[in-house]
Amino acid sequence: MGHTYSLGVAPKEHSGCLSDGTESLEATGLFLAVSRIEGMDTVAIACFDGFDELDAIGPYEVFENAARFGASWDVTLRSARESDIVTASHGLRIEPDGPLADVAPDLLVVAGGGWNDRSEAGVWTETERGDLPDAVAAAHNRGATVAGVCTGGMVLSRAGLLDGRPAVTHGGAIEDLRATDATVVDARVVDDDDVLTCGGVTSGLDLAVHLVEREWGADVAAAVCEEMEYEPHGDIFRGELA
Amino acid sequence: MGHTYSLGVAPKEHSGCLSDGTESLEATGLFLAVSRIEGMDTVAIACFDGFDELDAIGPYEVFENAARFGASWDVTLRSARESDIVTASHGLRIEPDGPLADVAPDLLVVAGGGWNDRSEAGVWTETERGDLPDAVAAAHNRGATVAGVCTGGMVLSRAGLLDGRPAVTHGGAIEDLRATDATVVDARVVDDDDVLTCGGVTSGLDLAVHLVEREWGADVAAAVCEEMEYEPHGDIFRGELA
Repeated sequence: MGHTYSLGVAPKEHSGCLSDGTESLEATGLFLAVSRIEGMDTVAIACFDGFDELDAIGPYEVFENAARFGASWDVTLRSARESDIVTASHGLRIEPDGPLADVAPDLLVVAGGGWNDRSEAGVWTETERGDLPDAVAAAHNRGATVAGVCTGGMVLSRAGLLDGRPAVTHGGAIEDLRATDATVVDARVVDDDDVLTCGGVTSGLDLAVHLVEREWGADVAAAVCEEMEYEPHGDIFRGELA
Repeated sequence: MGHTYSLGVAPKEHSGCLSDGTESLEATGLFLAVSRIEGMDTVAIACFDGFDELDAIGPYEVFENAARFGASWDVTLRSARESDIVTASHGLRIEPDGPLADVAPDLLVVAGGGWNDRSEAGVWTETERGDLPDAVAAAHNRGATVAGVCTGGMVLSRAGLLDGRPAVTHGGAIEDLRATDATVVDARVVDDDDVLTCGGVTSGLDLAVHLVEREWGADVAAAVCEEMEYEPHGDIFRGELA
């Protein structure tokens, strides 16, 4: 479930300042957590010109429905940079909730799109440009869980987050991913705890439902699936690499 | 497939003016069709404040991908009325391609949303207001194929298009549909030729893939599914009522 209250010896990554910005009370290696340190209170879905519509909107609707059925998180669509309108890869124009730089989400989901055809706008261009991968790396470094949907996984790869980890991406980008230091896994969703990836486009629905179940429980996930008349399918890899 | 060229006796619904606006050459009951009369050249997806995001964006992306793989149709997102921004039921704000009144589509898809909870914005309010159902009825009367996704089916119902026909809608609205003159069918997609309906939210993906296959063939549909890593599932009802 999404909330963990802790009292004990401060693990390295939580000492000093907790992930939600509150300070712990440190004394001789002990700390009292006065706030949640592992909750997923805020979710940001990162988009950019050339993002694939469903890569972002699929998880967005799953997460928003989860909020309706008990997940107490705030979900927003965030542009990679300041932008009034973001134009997706098939032409949809959306008005984002603000730039990614304005938030420090507990869960950051990165949409894909525009990698396989090396589009002028999309993941290929974003990985060349570099500021989005840098922001993703910084979010992970800060303690955020990071998920790449479809070729959004190539942004995580460029951020260095998939090195030595199991991962997957859109079928059209799988050889590019294999050429990195990631270990490509034959699954629809790959959950490596703080870093998740999934296959192409509609796989994002399965990744999102999986995260809802992991963070908020099976009942919330089931309610979301009933509302959306969706049956999750495909393998979820959550093990250790051999 | 999507294109039919005809030469022969003018059927009642095609006499005088063809569905794409070109005039037939009538003479003693015979006509020469100088243009396609059954093609699906233009697709409009109708949305409105309170529409369910995936009801519209799912089919939109399927149809746009179909265009990439050989379907020569033009696909646009149309607001029920003049509107710079349309706000969906989970908060997504989109910039539509223009108002529905500006086009005469061969295929009109109506999104759902906001019926089950009688939202201030959404299908419930649209059916009370009446101008969208009227526009849908007019489009069908003009010769358009009309499809209702999720509770978008209740707009078709209000337009009188489901009376005496097989139909389905979101599970949460099925009893409301049963109370009309439609015959509720236990299927994910119901294809009654010029009027189609489907279940909730993600069922719209299956309706859209089915329409792509029906109009443009199995190869185009398969290419779309591979690109979107989607496996259509659930029953498609295309028969006669018993």
